[in-house]
Amino acid sequence: MATNPKEHLVDWLRDAHAMEQQAESMLQSMAERLEHYPVLRARIVEHISETQWQRSQLEACLSRLGASPSAMKDMGGKLMAFGQAVSGMFVSDEVVKGSMAGYVFENMEIASYTVLIATARHAGDTETAAVCEQIIAQERAMAAWLLEHLPSTADAFLSRSATPGVSADR
Amino acid sequence: MATNPKEHLVDWLRDAHAMEQQAESMLQSMAERLEHYPVLRARIVEHISETQWQRSQLEACLSRLGASPSAMKDMGGKLMAFGQAVSGMFVSDEVVKGSMAGYVFENMEIASYTVLIATARHAGDTETAAVCEQIIAQERAMAAWLLEHLPSTADAFLSRSATPGVSADR
Repeated sequence: MATNPKEHLVDWLRDAHAMEQQAESMLQSMAERLEHYPVLRARIVEHISETQWQRSQLEACLSRLGASPSAMKDMGGKLMAFGQAVSGMFVSDEVVKGSMAGYVFENMEIASYTVLIATARHAGDTETAAVCEQIIAQERAMAAWLLEHLPSTADAFLSRSATPGVSADR
Repeated sequence: MATNPKEHLVDWLRDAHAMEQQAESMLQSMAERLEHYPVLRARIVEHISETQWQRSQLEACLSRLGASPSAMKDMGGKLMAFGQAVSGMFVSDEVVKGSMAGYVFENMEIASYTVLIATARHAGDTETAAVCEQIIAQERAMAAWLLEHLPSTADAFLSRSATPGVSADR
């Protein structure tokens, strides 16, 4: 069975939409739990707004392509299992693994939008390509910020962790 | 309970060792399955050798820190669950998701070695920091290669996929 590029585009936009829903709940959960890492917390809160905007942009792309909103709820698939595993790291672990998971999740998003941009162009959908270019710029900025701050987060965690009576995890 | 930086360093080196074991089996599996994407396959085969070298370097670091090899087998934990989910994408899906998973996995490695370098320095272990600097350079190169080639991989997949009677997945 042959599958045309537009069908793949719709499938992968749905995956991205599910990914952003997961990103939002993951980021919310981390923002609520962090106590001793206010700089990290502030950047996460900022990215939650961006994530909400991204989801609405993806919904507009899907509507324009004639995909029904209800179909968006029916996700499943490998990307979700993967996203859930990353979410698990985010929620239940300490700040260092949480930051790592955030960085990894951002890179999953970067990979997804890189593919979506190529696919939208392949399918001749310049509007979706332009939307995904805007989104990927935000994901790249968030990924770069998290990576840049990983060493200082690790340092702060290690110092707190070595101090008796001080909690380090969050 | 206070935990000193060296204890965290040993724990995280063990995580990295398990991660590289997983990386190797994931890359092997992908290299064996790819049929129609020879450029991607060749880069993966090249990275398998690097991955084997990295694992041996991590073993040397662990031995130097007095960690027994048997303890290296006892992994578990969040990072592994996460790695397994990424592996799952790698093995069972088509080439686009496989390339994405490879890129994401490389970024998990980049995050891990970023933390390990900070931790080794914090613990005063300059030799482990130097080893991890060498490894992270290889991971960055592989991640950059995979991201750079994602659009052409997606294009090739979409063209094959739209052609009746031609298999696209691998």
